[in-house]
This record gives sequence, structure tokens and C-alpha cells, in this order.
Amino acid sequence: MPKNKDAVYYSDYLKLDTLLSAQQPHSPKYGAEAHDEMLFIIVHQVYELWFKQVLHELRAIHADFSKPQLDDKALYLVAHRLRRVLTIQDLMNDQVAVIETMTPQEFLEFRDYLVPASGFQSIQFKELEIRLGLTRKTRIAFDQQSFYNRLNEQDRNYLEELEQQPTLFDCVDDWLARMPFLEFKDFKFWDMYQAAVNDALDHDETIIRENAADEEQLHTELAGIQANRDNFAALFDNERYKVLQESDAVRLSQRAMLSALFITQYREEPAFNLAWQVITSLAEVDEKLTIWRYKHAMMVQRMLGTKIGTGGSSGHDYLRRTTEQNRVFKDFFAMSTYLLPKSALPELPERVKAALGFSSLSALEKGDGAA
Amino acid sequence: MPKNKDAVYYSDYLKLDTLLSAQQPHSPKYGAEAHDEMLFIIVHQVYELWFKQVLHELRAIHADFSKPQLDDKALYLVAHRLRRVLTIQDLMNDQVAVIETMTPQEFLEFRDYLVPASGFQSIQFKELEIRLGLTRKTRIAFDQQSFYNRLNEQDRNYLEELEQQPTLFDCVDDWLARMPFLEFKDFKFWDMYQAAVNDALDHDETIIRENAADEEQLHTELAGIQANRDNFAALFDNERYKVLQESDAVRLSQRAMLSALFITQYREEPAFNLAWQVITSLAEVDEKLTIWRYKHAMMVQRMLGTKIGTGGSSGHDYLRRTTEQNRVFKDFFAMSTYLLPKSALPELPERVKAALGFSSLSALEKGDGAA
Amino acid sequence: MPKNKDAVYYSDYLKLDTLLSAQQPHSPKYGAEAHDEMLFIIVHQVYELWFKQVLHELRAIHADFSKPQLDDKALYLVAHRLRRVLTIQDLMNDQVAVIETMTPQEFLEFRDYLVPASGFQSIQFKELEIRLGLTRKTRIAFDQQSFYNRLNEQDRNYLEELEQQPTLFDCVDDWLARMPFLEFKDFKFWDMYQAAVNDALDHDETIIRENAADEEQLHTELAGIQANRDNFAALFDNERYKVLQESDAVRLSQRAMLSALFITQYREEPAFNLAWQVITSLAEVDEKLTIWRYKHAMMVQRMLGTKIGTGGSSGHDYLRRTTEQNRVFKDFFAMSTYLLPKSALPELPERVKAALGFSSLSALEKGDGAA
Amino acid sequence: MPKNKDAVYYSDYLKLDTLLSAQQPHSPKYGAEAHDEMLFIIVHQVYELWFKQVLHELRAIHADFSKPQLDDKALYLVAHRLRRVLTIQDLMNDQVAVIETMTPQEFLEFRDYLVPASGFQSIQFKELEIRLGLTRKTRIAFDQQSFYNRLNEQDRNYLEELEQQPTLFDCVDDWLARMPFLEFKDFKFWDMYQAAVNDALDHDETIIRENAADEEQLHTELAGIQANRDNFAALFDNERYKVLQESDAVRLSQRAMLSALFITQYREEPAFNLAWQVITSLAEVDEKLTIWRYKHAMMVQRMLGTKIGTGGSSGHDYLRRTTEQNRVFKDFFAMSTYLLPKSALPELPERVKAALGFSSLSALEKGDGAA
Repeated sequence: MPKNKDAVYYSDYLKLDTLLSAQQPHSPKYGAEAHDEMLFIIVHQVYELWFKQVLHELRAIHADFSKPQLDDKALYLVAHRLRRVLTIQDLMNDQVAVIETMTPQEFLEFRDYLVPASGFQSIQFKELEIRLGLTRKTRIAFDQQSFYNRLNEQDRNYLEELEQQPTLFDCVDDWLARMPFLEFKDFKFWDMYQAAVNDALDHDETIIRENAADEEQLHTELAGIQANRDNFAALFDNERYKVLQESDAVRLSQRAMLSALFITQYREEPAFNLAWQVITSLAEVDEKLTIWRYKHAMMVQRMLGTKIGTGGSSGHDYLRRTTEQNRVFKDFFAMSTYLLPKSALPELPERVKAALGFSSLSALEKGDGAA
Repeated sequence: MPKNKDAVYYSDYLKLDTLLSAQQPHSPKYGAEAHDEMLFIIVHQVYELWFKQVLHELRAIHADFSKPQLDDKALYLVAHRLRRVLTIQDLMNDQVAVIETMTPQEFLEFRDYLVPASGFQSIQFKELEIRLGLTRKTRIAFDQQSFYNRLNEQDRNYLEELEQQPTLFDCVDDWLARMPFLEFKDFKFWDMYQAAVNDALDHDETIIRENAADEEQLHTELAGIQANRDNFAALFDNERYKVLQESDAVRLSQRAMLSALFITQYREEPAFNLAWQVITSLAEVDEKLTIWRYKHAMMVQRMLGTKIGTGGSSGHDYLRRTTEQNRVFKDFFAMSTYLLPKSALPELPERVKAALGFSSLSALEKGDGAA
Repeated sequence: MPKNKDAVYYSDYLKLDTLLSAQQPHSPKYGAEAHDEMLFIIVHQVYELWFKQVLHELRAIHADFSKPQLDDKALYLVAHRLRRVLTIQDLMNDQVAVIETMTPQEFLEFRDYLVPASGFQSIQFKELEIRLGLTRKTRIAFDQQSFYNRLNEQDRNYLEELEQQPTLFDCVDDWLARMPFLEFKDFKFWDMYQAAVNDALDHDETIIRENAADEEQLHTELAGIQANRDNFAALFDNERYKVLQESDAVRLSQRAMLSALFITQYREEPAFNLAWQVITSLAEVDEKLTIWRYKHAMMVQRMLGTKIGTGGSSGHDYLRRTTEQNRVFKDFFAMSTYLLPKSALPELPERVKAALGFSSLSALEKGDGAA
Repeated sequence: MPKNKDAVYYSDYLKLDTLLSAQQPHSPKYGAEAHDEMLFIIVHQVYELWFKQVLHELRAIHADFSKPQLDDKALYLVAHRLRRVLTIQDLMNDQVAVIETMTPQEFLEFRDYLVPASGFQSIQFKELEIRLGLTRKTRIAFDQQSFYNRLNEQDRNYLEELEQQPTLFDCVDDWLARMPFLEFKDFKFWDMYQAAVNDALDHDETIIRENAADEEQLHTELAGIQANRDNFAALFDNERYKVLQESDAVRLSQRAMLSALFITQYREEPAFNLAWQVITSLAEVDEKLTIWRYKHAMMVQRMLGTKIGTGGSSGHDYLRRTTEQNRVFKDFFAMSTYLLPKSALPELPERVKAALGFSSLSALEKGDGAA
């Protein structure tokens, strides 16, 4: 442990000399200092620090999922760290309120000195998107090719190198696909399940027929039901599932999709609880990211109206674009389409439960535990 | 003042017997109680209580703006109450997190018993939208004609009656249009202003030409600039302004638009500060309402996937629809398009300031005050 | 399922006629309506609705813990519902910002008409405190005997009846005490543990001796260390533990305290993860309740200065009192006093793990699973 | 404006190389990296960035108040920037949730490597407190002399130099004291006011006598009323006011206190509205700072139990200490003690209003404006 000569000093430990020297407004070079440029710089630097922390967590999570086998302690840590990422995202979303205390007029005092810098050039944010698994296609649409091209050599190489590696999405897909939920010997889960979902869809159809207000609505909603029937059938038909994937209707592999469904259905079972927390958290990461892009885009529009941004993009375009909301884990988000109410759910046979080691804590209580 | 015999008892004052008797889950009628139906009811009831409070404030604000003349104390109250509305909206937006603690599966336990009730049927929320000035056209698109038709007699009449009256938007427009900002005798503000804005647009054009990454971007951005030039020119041309209005490009009357611009430019002048707070707050009410619809729609999609809602609508459709974001006060929101940096802004002549009674508090300090 | 004749109407389902008829300001009876009395009523009614929801969750949790044996699904639900309670508490804490939009002067317009009603008379809030396990002694100190006496017959009886029953604290204590963590056959966990904690305390003592800035600090801190040594020793000594309990230094039973320590140390093990989430959440419920009381008290002081409240209490007194912060689960909160870093923690023997059914999900992956 | 050769690159503008090189965990020097040390560093660095921004605003505000005369535009900016400070404080208070995602055990993995660094050594936070006007006496009590002594030469000198200058509190006091609200010629405001406040206190006394539940409460509350009578009388008696100041019962000068009262009473008058916003915001800065200290202290206690902190302080002591809540602007916070309801408030004579230039915007509307 540290002797007194190694006594740590707060500002040294936090490298405050370095940290607090990194705010260098440009406005003074062009005349009077624009008071609010400091806010602009610090708000963006805080975002970059949070991006670094989120990447710190995502890299650790990514590394765990990259292992051939994810043990339960690792799974606990993944769930724990995803919750931390979500907490940071909430803060980042609320932080938009701080930049909104700058009026458009105050921004105009220094906007010109930033051209053509743009938030699109945040390498950490791009790594965050790539690492999660945002596909190049969608990402480019977001970033506008033109800006992407304008990244410096080093940054572009870093990102392109990164794109060669399996993403967190890929690793999560593999992990789910490894689960043996399709091979329960005599327990015919998937037969029961398909029957139950079909009943549920018939039931929805009845609701529609009885409550549709007019022909047009009836038509639309029945078409929706039919689409769900087709998609659902495809879950159990390799050929049709491929079609869904190619049309971007689903992204998960077929096995992974079914495992995710199984885990979501039985999330209350201790063996599945952490896995379900992970699945849900990944969907929430997407959701909060979408909210962030959305609030951010509204802030840009408010700041610039239909004027061009410092990077030459118009807030308005960006707003339209962002609302297409490209989510990586949208399959988890839409999982509920095929969920059954607990009442309609086949109980897991004791044999299966036992095999899953479901006893855990209550086993101890019952006394057939560790004593 | 109350004698002791009139002593007020907390639960009587708050009518808690009535309030707490209003949670009547339907699931028990169909079998076991669904534990989470209580949450579903209470979350919606809390929203309705907040809607009532927001309407309480908006009606008072609306009444003040309906007067032939808005005095300064009234303006203070309007600004004060709009800030309250915004605070409540922040809470309503965060409240989505509470309903999100209900899993899709938990919702399925009682969803069927609610059919075909739908949040679209909240009369208070509709009044809120109508009162602000959401046009029937947009509102219907949101609500889906079919549901609107399904309102009961009384509710439909109430709303249709309301639609006949001038909205808050109309009153705010009148108030702004009454301002004499176009008739400063020898002070040629608008000439200077137009010259300055044109310089700013030329300047943006230069930025684009120097920084455009490729032909395509250059083309798009220059088209954007030209559109701004046309819109701006129209601000001073009755005929062309009418065209903008008919195409929904702007909604404010021409005079109101120019007054809003003037107030925004000179918001730091005491005489304009409250008015500017009001303008900004109205834009924020819109913005937070959009965020609420957006978060709400994502929650619905998460709860139902592409399943139909209790009202037969699919969360997915709604999500697409809501992102078109129909804002009432979008002209205030986009005001920044024509804003000038303070440096480029003509100083108000002393004569004008005097006429506006700009001295106020600092006058007192200087001693030429009330003594 | 409901036929169309049973079609549910939004406002009927939510009993809006009843709900929205429960706001009856008193000011009109005494002259002009005080605009802000509506806010005052609605803010308190929203709190009461949230109290009802929180009680709905706590009663279910309480019922589960009252069972002779808590199975794992129930434990999942308890953790899930406590997270919901925490989410609601966050919202309740933020809600203080809404009432703070009322100025003291606006409150004065109707304060007299409320006398002597007081938030201290919220029966639901009292039930919440009693059910959690706030002892009558502390609770009275909070409520001020005088007001408690002033409750009506029915309310007082309800609460006194409730006080006769075992609280959530009692049930959680029993549940923890039932765990067999003290009887691991040949695995001498507690010996290793005591040795490790003593090393840690020696280590802290060294830190102090090396870094104390002056004699006074040295003295104080060493006294602190000694107190920790004594408390820690008492954990393993029935007689001395009783003394700690009688002095209110600890509240949990000795067995429960040790179980909680064990679970906290090994929370990453799947079998303990949910139990640890429950323990942590209970400490957070306390923490957020304290924040709520604190913010609420500051709001009262701000509204009344040192004036008396509608119930005759001065905000200032209450503020002082609340900061004594009576927490029910403070033992969980202070658990960290005796925590060991993972590095210093004895690894659980495979035999013990097996008995705890630790394989769960990773077992499946390895293939020794359900197939 | 910048030519293309000066094209600004996002990461250069934000000095990201510097910023992102400042996170240097110590744990790797002692063995394996503690994953969560990064979170610990980044959370504190973000706080320091926000401290820098808050200081940026406070210095500008402080400079404006230091001028012999504060003009109205400056007053607008002060109000605007204080709102920004409050928005940042809200974010800082919510940020506690991020560090709380670190478990006590995770903290233990690297706590020893930080000794004896301590958040007490944040120079920016100390400057913030000193600049606002926290007196050395109170501040030391907070900081613990011992740590203050341990600051390095440079830091201690910087703070001691700062302590020689007039604080923001001093400047605000001077500004308020300069107002001529005591010398309205024939308008006997203060006579009317004293009469009205005495009526209000008599009224409170009646309430108490009629509603006191028992002798003890009656006694306590009547004593409270008497204290208010004495304090109030002292507002108009130089000698007795001095006594209040010496006993720390009040801090503002007598003239400043009366000006603040006058402004608070007439805040709806346009001439006073901005001044009132400033007064209120300063009280809120204090309030949010207190909440921050409080949440922070609870987090420390949760992290360490009664263990010593990295600086040798026990979270528990700090918690007790912080709740004494030393507020700089507590006189504004307690202003409500002497507030009158609008109904009891003497209307300002037209002559006075005119002199204050109260017409402003509504004057324009009426047409006696700038045209």
C-alpha cells in the first residue's frame, strides 16, 4: 500500500492541470470572447468523457461475450455494467437541457469559428455505434457520406479496422444461438408454443373484427395480423426466415431469435433472469440512444432553424433522418409480438428445471442446501 | 378565518375517499386479479390529473390573451404559469419510466379486458391540443378518424364546440400583431435588418461553397439557402407570405411573425424580456409534447411489438405518425433561421428606448427614480 | 373475452368522472378563487395515488415474505417490484419541483383555509412507514404526537391495528435468519472472514497513522477504528450483539446480519444475485424516502420561512428533525463497513457451489443442460 | 471568417487528445486494473468540468455586480446565467446515480491507491463556495481544518487571496442597499407594511390558540410567533438589527433586507421581475448545493459504511456535518416569513409606478409607444 511519500493529491490523481487546460475557445482569436463558447466546449467534452466511460463498459462486455463460453459471474457483470450504461445514458439525455440554456443568438456569436467541425466527427460515438453493431449502411446514412469522407486518415483507419471485427450484436447472437432450447427431449415446448401463439393471433383477429370502426381500419389491421402470422411461421421455417433477414425484417439468426423468445417467456426462472436482464438492457440502450439522437436533433433545429449547422448539415434534415431510428437490437425490442401471457405458457417439466439447476436459494432455505 | 369547528381534515380536503375509490381493475371480473392492472390504472389517472392542472393553467393563460389588451402583470403571470406547465411536462415525460417497469408479459395478463379503450380517447388531452391550436386536420391524422368517431355524444360535442373558439395560437398571434414594431418613425429598423440578414445568408453560402464535400452536398445545401432567401423575402411581401401560409410553411400572420422576430432580437431589453420568455416557453411546450408522444409511442411498441393496441391501433403505425411531429408554435421554434448575432444588430435609438420605458430598475439605482 | 356490448370506454375504465370531481378548492367559499389552490390539491392527490401504488407493491412483497418459504419466482417478483417502487420514488422526488413553481405569496392566498390540515395526516404514507418497519418511537418523533392524537377514530384504529402485525423488516429478518450460511460443514468461511476483516481494519489503522494531519484527527479516527473492531467482534458474540441491538446500533438479528453479509459478499453468484438485489433495493427505498423528506422539508421552509405550517408545525423544526433520518434498513446501508474486496475473499468450494445449484445457464451452454 | 485552410476539426477544437489522455488509473501500478477506477475518475472529472462552467458563469455575474451600477441588460444576463447554473446543478445532483452504480466492493478494489486524496481538496469547488460568500468559519467546519492545511502551497495561496475580495453575497447586498425603496416621499409604504405584518402575526397566533393539540405545542408555537415578532421589529431598528446580524440570525444588511422584501412583494411589476428572479435563483443555488452535499454524503456513507474515506474522513461525520446546511443566501430563502398575501398589499401609487417606468410593453400595445 502507498507510503506517505506516495501520498496522492486530488488534483494530481485527476490530472486536473491537463483536464482544465483543454478548453480553448476560438472566439478570442477573432475579437471579443463569446461568453457561451465555454459552455459549448464543456458540454461536448463532458459528452466525450461519458462516451469514453460507456466504451469502457461496452469493451469489457464485448470481451466477455467474445469468449467461447460465458460463465454466470461474467453474465452478472454484463447485466450490472449494462445497467450502468443505461444510467449514464439517462444523464446524457438530460444534459441536452444544459446546452438549451444557450440561446440561438448566443450561439451565433461564435458559430462561424467552428466551421466545418461537426458532432458527426466524434470518433468515440462512431466506435460506440459500430461496436454495438450499427451496420455501415445505416450508419453512413446517418453520418452523411460526405462527412465520413472528411475524417482524417488516422480516424478513418481506426473505424474501418474496427468494422472488420465481430460486433457486440454478433457475439450476443452467437451466445443465444449456442443455447440448447430447441432440443428438449420429450418436452414438446415449441409445438405447444406455436399452437398458443396461433390462438392468440386468432383472438386478436376476433377483437379487430368486432371493434373495427370502419372498412378501411378493418382492412389495415387484418393485413397487420396476416403479416404477424407470416413472420411467426417463418420463425420455424429456415427458408422463409432467410427471406425475413434479407428484407431487414429481422436481424437475429433463427436459433438466437428462438432462444431470446424462450428466455423472455421464462425470465422469472432464476436460470434465465440475468440473461433476460441482458436482453432487455440491450434493447434499452438502443431506445435511450434513439431518444438522445432525437432530443439532440430538436436542439440543433431550435438553435439553427433551417440554417446550416457548423458542419454544413441542416438540423432539419438530420431530424428527419434520425427519426428513422436505426436500432441494433430491435428484435429484442419487438419480442413482445410473439409473447404469451403466463396463463397460456406451458409449465417447464421438473426434469427440465432440475437440469437447469433451478433450485438455488430456495433450495438452501428448504435445507437441502449446502449444510 | 376558520373556527375550530371548521377545522379541515387532510383526507377530507383532498377528497381521498373519492379519489382512492376510483381504481377498479377489470381483471378480477374475468378471474384472478392481474397485479399490474393497478399500475396501469394509476399511471393513466396521474396523467389525467396532470392534464387537468395543465388545462387549468392554459385556460387562465388563454383568458388573459383573449382580452383586448394584455397588461404587464398579466404577462408576468403568463410567463410564470407557462414555466409551471413546462415543469409538469418534464415530470410527465419522466413518468414513462414508471409504466416501463411493467413487462409486455405482465400487460398481456389484462390487455384483453380493456378493449377497445384507448388513450386516444382522453378528452382532456384532446382539449389540450385543441386549445393550444392543433388544427383539426393534423389532430385527426393523429387520433385516427375511426376512434374520433367512436367518442360518445357528450365528449364529441364538447370538443366540436371547443373547436369553434379562437385557440391560444390565434390569441397570441393577435397580441403580437397588435405590436407597433413596424412603425418606428425615422428609425429604419427593417431596412437595416433585411440588409443584415442578406449578408448572413451570403456568408452561409460562402461557407457551403468552401466546405461542401461533394457536388451532391453542395447542390442540396445551396438549394436550402435559396429556400431561406425566398422565405425571408416573403416576410416583407404580403402576396408571397400568403403563399407560405397556404403551403403550411408558416402559420403566424405576417405582422405577428415580424413582431416575434423583433422581440426575439431585443429580448435583453427589459420591456421585451417577459414577452420573449412567453414566446420561448410556447415553443418548449410543443417540444416537450413531441418528446412525450415519442417516448409514449416507443413504450407502446415495446409493450406490443407489432401487435395491435387495446384500441386496435398498432404502436408501430403510431410511432411513424407521431414523428411527423405536428407543432403548433413551430414558427417560434424556427425563429432562429432569421436571427442576427448581437454584433450585427442595430442599436435601438434612445428615443425609442425611452418610449418603451426601458429605464425601470436601473433608473431607480441612478436615483432618477421614485424618490 | 369481452363482446362488443362490453366495449370498454377509456373514461369509464379510468373512472374519470369520479377522479376529476375530487378537486374542490376551499378558497371560493371565502371569496375569490385562489388560482394556485388547484395545483396544491392536485400535487397532493398525485402523491396519494403514488402512495397507493407503492402500498400495492409493498403489500404483495410483504405477503410473499410472510410465507414460511420464499420460492425463487417469488424472489424474482420481489426484486422486480422493488425496482418499480424505486422508479416511482424517483418521480415523487422530482415532483417537488412542481410544487416549487408556486411562490410563497401565491400559497398565502389560501393557506388559512386549510388549517389545521397537514401532510402529517396522510394515512397511506403512515401505513407505508409502518409496513416497512419504522418503529412507533421514531415515527411519532417525526409526526409529532400532537398531530397523531388528532387523527380521527377510524384512521387511528387502522394504524394501531397495523402496528400489531409483523412488518416487512421483521419478515425480511426472518427470511435471512433462515439461511444456513453459518453451517458449512468443513468450509470454515467465518474464520477466514474474521481474519480477513481484522487485516483490513489493521490496514485502515496504518493508513490513519501515516496520513493523519494532526493529533486531534489521529485520535478521532483511531477511536472510529476501535468502534468498528468492537462492533465487528460483536457480530460473533451473542451477548455483545444484544448490547448493540439495545443501543439501536444495529437492528437486524445476529443470524440475519451474517446472512446479509454473506449474500453481499457473494452477490455475483447466480444463487445470491436476486437476494442481493432485494437487500440493496430495500436500502435504496430508505435512501430515496430520506431524500423525499428532505426536499419536502426544504420546500416547506421556503414556502413559510419560519412561519407555522397549515398544521401548526414549523418547516424549520421539521427540517431539523428529518435530517436525523430514521432508516429502517440502515444495517443493509452500512453493510459496507465489513465488506472485503474480492481479492481478500475465500473462494466458495465447488461442493458448496454445487449444493447451491450454481450451474444454471452456463451449464446449458456447456451442454450438461436440459437436452 | 475562416478560409478552408483554417477548417476546424472536431477533435482538435475540443482538444480530445489532451482531454482523453487525462484518465490514469492507479490500480495497474499495484497489480490488475480495477475496472471501476475509470468510472471513479471520469465521474470526478465531469464534476470538475461542470465546476469550471459554473465558475465561468459566477465570475461573469460577480463582475457585473461589482460595477458601481448594474444596468438592465446586465440584470437580464445575470438572471439568464443563474438559470443556467441551476440547470447544471440539477444535472450534477442526478449524476450521483452514476457513481452509485459502483458497489462498495468494487470501490474497495482500488480505494487504498487513492489515499489520502479527497474531494475536500477540489479547489474549484472551494472557489465556488468562497465566491458565493461562504464564510471561512463555516467552510472550514465543512472541510475539516486538517485537510485544508494539507492543500499545497499554490492552492492554499490562491484561495486565501480570493478570500480577501468581496464575495458575490457582498456585491448583491450592496446592489440591494443602493435601491431607494425606503424613501418614497408621501407614500407611507413601510408603515402600512408593518401594520399588515403585525395583523398577519396576530392572525397566526389565533390559529395556534384555536388549534394547538396540547399545552406543550401551544407553548412552542407561541414562542415561535414571539421570535418572529422580535425579528420583524428588528428590521426597522438599527440597534436590534445589529444584534440579529451578530447572532447570525440574518446576514444581509438592514437596507438590503428591506429592498429584497420590497422586490419580493412587488415581483409582478415588470421593473422588479428580473431582480426577483435573481434573488430567487440565488436562494435556489444554495438549495441545490445543499441537496448535492446531502446526496453526496449519503453516497459516501453507503460506499464506506462507517469506514474511513480516502481522505481519512468518515462519511458518517460528513453526513452529520453537511446537514447543518450552511447557506449563503438563507435570508432570501426565509424571506417568506414576512411576506404578505397580495390582498393585504398596498397598491403602488401611479406616480411611483410611472417613475419606475412600469408601462413598457403594454404601453406599446396601447399605442402611446414608440410610433
